[in-house]
Amino acid sequence: MLTRPDVAVVGAGPVGLAIAWRCAARGLRVVVHDPAPGSGASRVAAGMLAPVAEAYFGERELTGLLTESAARWPGFAAELAGVAELAGAAELAGAAGAGFGYRTDGTLVVGLTGDDLAEARRLWSYQQGLGLPITALRPSQLRDREPALTPRLRGGAVAPGDHQVDPRRLVTALRVAAERAGVTLVPGAVTRLADLVAPVVVVAAGCGAAALTGLPVRPVKGQVLRLRAPGHRPPDFRHVIRGYADGESVYLVPRDNGEVVVGATVEERADTEVTAGAVLRLLRAAVDLVPELAEYELVEAVAGLRPGTPDNAPILGPLPDRPDVLAATGHHRHGIVLTPVTADLITELIVTGRPDPLLTPFTADRFAAPAGPRSGSTAGGVGRDRETANEGETCD
Amino acid sequence: MLTRPDVAVVGAGPVGLAIAWRCAARGLRVVVHDPAPGSGASRVAAGMLAPVAEAYFGERELTGLLTESAARWPGFAAELAGVAELAGAAELAGAAGAGFGYRTDGTLVVGLTGDDLAEARRLWSYQQGLGLPITALRPSQLRDREPALTPRLRGGAVAPGDHQVDPRRLVTALRVAAERAGVTLVPGAVTRLADLVAPVVVVAAGCGAAALTGLPVRPVKGQVLRLRAPGHRPPDFRHVIRGYADGESVYLVPRDNGEVVVGATVEERADTEVTAGAVLRLLRAAVDLVPELAEYELVEAVAGLRPGTPDNAPILGPLPDRPDVLAATGHHRHGIVLTPVTADLITELIVTGRPDPLLTPFTADRFAAPAGPRSGSTAGGVGRDRETANEGETCD
Repeated sequence: MLTRPDVAVVGAGPVGLAIAWRCAARGLRVVVHDPAPGSGASRVAAGMLAPVAEAYFGERELTGLLTESAARWPGFAAELAGVAELAGAAELAGAAGAGFGYRTDGTLVVGLTGDDLAEARRLWSYQQGLGLPITALRPSQLRDREPALTPRLRGGAVAPGDHQVDPRRLVTALRVAAERAGVTLVPGAVTRLADLVAPVVVVAAGCGAAALTGLPVRPVKGQVLRLRAPGHRPPDFRHVIRGYADGESVYLVPRDNGEVVVGATVEERADTEVTAGAVLRLLRAAVDLVPELAEYELVEAVAGLRPGTPDNAPILGPLPDRPDVLAATGHHRHGIVLTPVTADLITELIVTGRPDPLLTPFTADRFAAPAGPRSGSTAGGVGRDRETANEGETCD
Repeated sequence: MLTRPDVAVVGAGPVGLAIAWRCAARGLRVVVHDPAPGSGASRVAAGMLAPVAEAYFGERELTGLLTESAARWPGFAAELAGVAELAGAAELAGAAGAGFGYRTDGTLVVGLTGDDLAEARRLWSYQQGLGLPITALRPSQLRDREPALTPRLRGGAVAPGDHQVDPRRLVTALRVAAERAGVTLVPGAVTRLADLVAPVVVVAAGCGAAALTGLPVRPVKGQVLRLRAPGHRPPDFRHVIRGYADGESVYLVPRDNGEVVVGATVEERADTEVTAGAVLRLLRAAVDLVPELAEYELVEAVAGLRPGTPDNAPILGPLPDRPDVLAATGHHRHGIVLTPVTADLITELIVTGRPDPLLTPFTADRFAAPAGPRSGSTAGGVGRDRETANEGETCD
C-alpha cells in the first residue's frame, strides 16, 4: 500500500478481518496487522452460533446482541460464500457456505442425570422467559433426533436456531474476502498504537488489547479437544449437543469432515497448557452423552485464551480518551457468533461517525473508574461488574 | 564399511542395537539396518524392568527369562553408562545411569477398590508362590512410601526389585555404544532377507519380522500417555505404580525430568490411532490412583505396536529352515527388560555356535505346524498356544 490507509486494524481474527472486509467494501483503504492471522482464540473456538443456549441469567443486553448477530449470520454467510467462490478459492466452494462449515442443524440441550436435567431446565426456562426459541423434549424425542445419544439421558430441549460454523475455515474465507476487497495484510506485531499512522485504528486483538489500550481485558483459558470419526466418516450425530453430565458442562460440535469439537473449560488462567484433568473431564462427559465417541480418534487437545471483560460482554467503540481508536474486543466465549454484528456496527460507526444504539451497553467507558471510591457501574454501563479484571494480564 | 560384515542386524531398536553392540565388542563386523532407529515399540514403551509384576499365570518359562534378564540389568546399565561417558556423550552423563533413566526405586502394586485389591492380591500370591520378592502392604504403609497415592486405596504390595529405564534415551545410549564399538548403521529398510550379504542375519525388527521371516509375530496395539509435572518439577512420587482402579489396569512411571508415563492399553489391532476411549480410561485410572496428576500437563498421547507371538513369549534363535537367520523378536510387552539377556544369548550363539539352555523354550520351531492336523504344541514348545496368530498382519 503506497498511500496512507484510512483504517488500521490490529488483529486478523474473525472480528478484525470481518471489520476490514466491511470497511473495504465501503470504499475505505484498510490495512490489517497481525504476525499470525487466526492464531488467537478463534483457532481454538468451536464456532457455535448459539444465542439461545448462551443466554445466561443477568446477561440480558448481551443476549440481545447475540440474538441480533445470530439473525445476521445467514446473510453474512451467504455473502461471504459468494465472495469466496467468486475469488476462485476452490477449497471454500460447495453447497451454501459449506466452505466454512456453516450449518443450521440446530442444538440439543441434554441432561444426563436428574440433577443435570434440573440444571439445564432452570436455564432454558429462563431462556423461554426471554421469548427465545427453545422447546423441551422427552428422552425418546431426543433419541429420535439423535440415536447416538446415550439411553441414560433424563431429558433435554431443542434450540432449532442455534447453528454452527468452523472458525478456522471462517478465518480463511474472511482473508480471501478481505484481500479480494482490497485489504492489505501486514504480518507484523503492533506493540504501540503510536506506531500506526491511520486516522482510525481498530483494536481487534483479543486479549492482546489490554497491553495496547489499558482496557480491562483478561485472558480466560479454554481447553478443547478434537475427535474424528473412524474411517473419516461423518460423525454419528448432526445437531450441536450441549450437555450436562454428572455436573460437568460440555458441548459436542459435529463437522461434515468427521471432526467433533469437544469443549470447553473456562479457567481464570493465562497459560495454554493442556492438563490431564481437563482432558479427563471433557472426555468423560462426552462419552457419557454419546458413548460411540470412545471409538473416535483423539486428533488434537489444545488450549486458547478468550478475551474476557469484567462483565464478560464485549467492548465496542472508542476509547474514552482516544476517539480515533475503536475497540472491538472482549468477546469472551462469543467472538464467532458476534462477528457479523460487530463488523456491521464498527464499520457503520467509522463510515458515518454515528454510533448505532445497539452499541450503547458495550462502550469502553463503562469500566472507567471515576475519581474516588470505585462505583458499581457508570453511565451506559450494564451494572454487572461481577469480578475484578486483572488489568496487567495479557495473552502472553 | 568396505568389507562384508560378519553380522547384519535388521532393526535398530534396543534389542537390535544391544545385539550389535555385544557382537562388535566380541570382534565381529556388524551392520544394522533401520530406516528410523528407535521408532518402533520402544518409542512408546514405558521401560519397566518388572519381572515380578509381569509374572502372569501360566507363563513360568517367560517369568524365568524376565527374572534372568532383570538380574543382568545392573551390570548392563553400568557398562552402557561407562561406554557412553567414555564416548563423551554429554547428555548421557550424570549419576550412575541417569543418562538413560535407569532407576531402582521399586514398584508399588495397588488396588483402589476391594475388587481391585482382590484381583491384585490373586496375582501377587502367585508371584510369591514362585519365590519372587513381593510383600503386601497396608494402605497406610503404601501412603507412607508415596503420600501422593489416593487415601481411597484398599491395599497393595511392594516389589523392590522391579525397576525402570527410559527407552527413548536407552536407544540413544545404545547407538552411541554400538557406534563406538565399530557398528555401522545403515538408514534403509530391508524388505527381503535375500538382499543381505552377511553370513549371519539377526532379525530384530519387532513386528516387522512377520513379513521378513513368516514367523507368527502379530502387532499388539498399546496406547500410552505422557504427562508432565507443573513447573517441570519432579513428579510427586518416585516408585513405579501399577494399579487396578475400578477394574482398569494402569501403570504410572515417574521420570526425573518431571515426566510420568501412563500406560497402557493392550489391543489386538494393527492401527496406531489414539482413541478417545483409551485416553479416557488411562486418565481416569491414573487420576483415581494419584489425584495430583489432574494438574499435570498432557504432553503426548501415542500408540505403538508390540510384537506379539501366539504364546506372547519371544522368539530367540534360528529359523527352522534358515540356520543362518536368527530371530530376536516377539518380545511383546517385555522388550526393554529382556534386552540384556537377549543380547547376551544371541551374541553367544553367534560367537560359539552353541545355544544356551535358556533359549530352549523360546526357539522359533515351537510354532512350526506339523503336516496334518495342527497339534497343540511341538517339541521344545511351551504348550501355551492361546491364540491364533494373524500371520499376514504386520506393523504397517
